Amino acid sequence: MKKDRPLILISNDDGIFAKGIASLVDFVRDLGEIVVVAPSFPQSGMGHAITIHEHIRLDKSTLIPGVEAYECSGTPVDCVKLAKHFILKDRKPALVLSGINHGSNSSVSVIYSGTMSAAIEGAMEGIPSIGFSLCDYDHNADFEHCREIVRKIVSRSLDGPFPDHTALNVNFPMAKTGLKGIRICRQARARWQEEFENRKDPRGRDYFWLSGNFTNLDHGSDTDEAALSEGFVSVVPCHFDLTSYQSIPEVEKMLL
Amino acid sequence: MKKDRPLILISNDDGIFAKGIASLVDFVRDLGEIVVVAPSFPQSGMGHAITIHEHIRLDKSTLIPGVEAYECSGTPVDCVKLAKHFILKDRKPALVLSGINHGSNSSVSVIYSGTMSAAIEGAMEGIPSIGFSLCDYDHNADFEHCREIVRKIVSRSLDGPFPDHTALNVNFPMAKTGLKGIRICRQARARWQEEFENRKDPRGRDYFWLSGNFTNLDHGSDTDEAALSEGFVSVVPCHFDLTSYQSIPEVEKMLL
Repeated sequence: MKKDRPLILISNDDGIFAKGIASLVDFVRDLGEIVVVAPSFPQSGMGHAITIHEHIRLDKSTLIPGVEAYECSGTPVDCVKLAKHFILKDRKPALVLSGINHGSNSSVSVIYSGTMSAAIEGAMEGIPSIGFSLCDYDHNADFEHCREIVRKIVSRSLDGPFPDHTALNVNFPMAKTGLKGIRICRQARARWQEEFENRKDPRGRDYFWLSGNFTNLDHGSDTDEAALSEGFVSVVPCHFDLTSYQSIPEVEKMLL
Repeated sequence: MKKDRPLILISNDDGIFAKGIASLVDFVRDLGEIVVVAPSFPQSGMGHAITIHEHIRLDKSTLIPGVEAYECSGTPVDCVKLAKHFILKDRKPALVLSGINHGSNSSVSVIYSGTMSAAIEGAMEGIPSIGFSLCDYDHNADFEHCREIVRKIVSRSLDGPFPDHTALNVNFPMAKTGLKGIRICRQARARWQEEFENRKDPRGRDYFWLSGNFTNLDHGSDTDEAALSEGFVSVVPCHFDLTSYQSIPEVEKMLL
């Protein structure tokens, strides 16, 4: 192994056993030295959660053969933090990759996504970071059509310049043929219309399952939703400054 | 009870038994009709997590006397979703309040905060929303000095106009005397420098506790950290569009 190969840290939120992370490792393993730190069980929808009320377990994993890999009982963000501060220490990654997620993380889903939160945590640490998602929730989804564009995005990101403190939110349309290329987008305004299924357990006590439908409220041609619906791979550069600068004067007027 | 009293939904992340949420209810209960839906156990650091791999329990609670209250086994964001779509249904809240958090949610802590994520979920639902935090992690913290400014912010927010799809991140300095007033700010650039304590369980297996130190990297006078350090209450208007618009040209150059 050449000493100057870039170090690439890979995580996800579906768990280290997921097909998506195995595909991602397979697509990029010749582009750098790979270290995988991923959750030991599914962590979809964990957002930017960290584990502070429980301890965390971390074990060497053989689930991804030929690669230095660890499974972690914590969240995707815990994985990146443990990788950075405990496993890698002085070995700074050139890139944090997360995914490939089984299911879309476009539009507002970025907020709920453990996959994207791992990438954003990388960006917070000052590391160029990319989350990949395929708009297909199937556990056995076929990621092969993502290979060339994943490799292109990773290679170009390694070459840089990559914008500071930024994570790319990359979504692939489900359609396996005729990818039209890459489009750089803004996050569409959309919402989840939740429904809660109310069931009764065998003792007659209520419990609930969260479900919901996605509604796109934003028909701008520059959005990730528009790109995906037209067969493009959407790339949204994301930051973690939540300040709504444009609202500052209005809030000053209201409160001061 | 007057029929036209505004409906105020209150949640938090420390749990329904926390002193902070009892204080918040106490401070604002005459300003509207209060409904509390809060986690049944501590959910600090849960970020924007939602519960999709487990079911959720929801029970009426008597922990906040004289108020319609529910405890929920899920995350703070689950609480807001269940309140909106199952408990309140057609009764649209005029305001979502979250907190008062035991500990700071200024700067990048907003990303990890369950308290702020509940408020941001409210904003995503188009409801004016406010997260309150006190820079004191003590379970028995004294919130009394926050009373007048909490009431002022809530009253003014009910009167509006409140910026669309925005959540206010309000942090109170720990100092109990001499609050200098309110300052509308931007989120400071800062980072958590993590450390993991590696311990061995009685069977000799490793486990880890996350800890860390906060480092402010941003000495701008317009930041929340600056306001707090000078004795002001900081208010950052937050949105949920993570798009880094300024990075779009750079990413286009890199990838297209």
